[in-house]
Amino acid sequence: MSEGNGAAGPGETKKLYTACLILIGNELLSGRIQDANLAFLGRELNELGIRLAEARVISDDEATIVDAVNTTRARYDYVFTSGGIGPTHDDITTDSVASAFDLKVEQNSEAVKMLLQHYREEDLNEARLRMARIPLGATLLENPLSKAPGFRIENVFVMAGVPRIFQAKFHSFKHMLVGGKPVRSHAISAFITESILAADLTTIQERHPEVEIGSYIFVRAGKAGVSLVLRHPEESSIQVAADEVREMLRNHGVEPMDDEGKHASC
Amino acid sequence: MSEGNGAAGPGETKKLYTACLILIGNELLSGRIQDANLAFLGRELNELGIRLAEARVISDDEATIVDAVNTTRARYDYVFTSGGIGPTHDDITTDSVASAFDLKVEQNSEAVKMLLQHYREEDLNEARLRMARIPLGATLLENPLSKAPGFRIENVFVMAGVPRIFQAKFHSFKHMLVGGKPVRSHAISAFITESILAADLTTIQERHPEVEIGSYIFVRAGKAGVSLVLRHPEESSIQVAADEVREMLRNHGVEPMDDEGKHASC
Repeated sequence: MSEGNGAAGPGETKKLYTACLILIGNELLSGRIQDANLAFLGRELNELGIRLAEARVISDDEATIVDAVNTTRARYDYVFTSGGIGPTHDDITTDSVASAFDLKVEQNSEAVKMLLQHYREEDLNEARLRMARIPLGATLLENPLSKAPGFRIENVFVMAGVPRIFQAKFHSFKHMLVGGKPVRSHAISAFITESILAADLTTIQERHPEVEIGSYIFVRAGKAGVSLVLRHPEESSIQVAADEVREMLRNHGVEPMDDEGKHASC
Repeated sequence: MSEGNGAAGPGETKKLYTACLILIGNELLSGRIQDANLAFLGRELNELGIRLAEARVISDDEATIVDAVNTTRARYDYVFTSGGIGPTHDDITTDSVASAFDLKVEQNSEAVKMLLQHYREEDLNEARLRMARIPLGATLLENPLSKAPGFRIENVFVMAGVPRIFQAKFHSFKHMLVGGKPVRSHAISAFITESILAADLTTIQERHPEVEIGSYIFVRAGKAGVSLVLRHPEESSIQVAADEVREMLRNHGVEPMDDEGKHASC
């Protein structure tokens, strides 16, 4: 786990970049809404050479948000928050993040201009203007869809929770993120019981400690199988271990199936 | 947030019971697998009068697991972990949780008996026997599906990550959990823009501070709308606030739609 605190500059040669996602919302914890931002962000960050090392799902409570933001921004290179920046009374993320940084919140004229691209002036009521309240000194993050911006303070990126807005916002600023070498991954599946492979898998993992090898069971068309996922920044390192995995599966009498085209996203 | 540490006994009259879910697995953070256990547990705990107050998604790393378990078991009444108790080298949850409690891990003869209900003795290889390694002093949690048990130490419940096993295991021990009064919820939806309602909603929330009122936007059949979710243990408290919400919507010229039959699960 990285000890970095603050996004690294482009000139640095840091090897491992890490991030944390804080999902804010009672509706996620009550099971009313199924999160869709975690998997999206994990895959996107991986493409940028940044490892999503942790995610926290927390409630709409100021002290809880302040604690989570301050704990994680000291521990990871990047922190992303999702949810709670809309126009209603239960949207308290902006004030809570400001509180974590000990900053005041004020109406931001640039943010008002952004909202006026989406709303007519006479429709920009008090509630909508709430979405232009931004902590002093924060950098605005463009929202290509509904124009209500997110913001960035140091290494903390505050975003809306609605998945299509979260995704559009992320794409609008991801060029600003500095990462390392993307991790490549390769999955090899077979219809065989996981525990039969365990001992041989341990041997392969010990022979290639640098390659992360995960074993995941699945059921497809009623048949049980296992997916072995190999992850490493270098394709060549993966291939050496992958050849051994394929040979091992054949020695157990099953044909390995390669999941191609899943580089860096599975 | 509760300050309890340790499950309360049945005689106690504690009002608010809280829980944390720790989802363990690199595959969740890389986006390879979409979690399905959080929403399930949130709804189930709610039925038992226990509030899922936080969830953490962490990687397969012993120090990380130890830290998450020790931080959360002191903060919440119940902690549930999901993932990492299978037969392969990347399954390190059992040893990590033991480490958090400073306990040794040994082969548990009761767990071996459970595995023998599923596997023939000659098929109980070394890898499968790994699933009978249990921290000393832990209570086994039955697994009605594949028989590999989870375990409980104090207020920490260690479970498999595969959703159907996670769910079956939870149902097998949920009668042991002590909770308060279940929180009822009632959702009222309308095709209207959220920000138009914001000021009136704030007024209703201020008039009923005990009822938790959440506002969630949605798009259905191409039309934008808002769901207003009211939550409280007493149906009567919800109904008073719900009547005001319906009247408020009609005053804005839209017809409120009640989502019936969603008690305690939305």
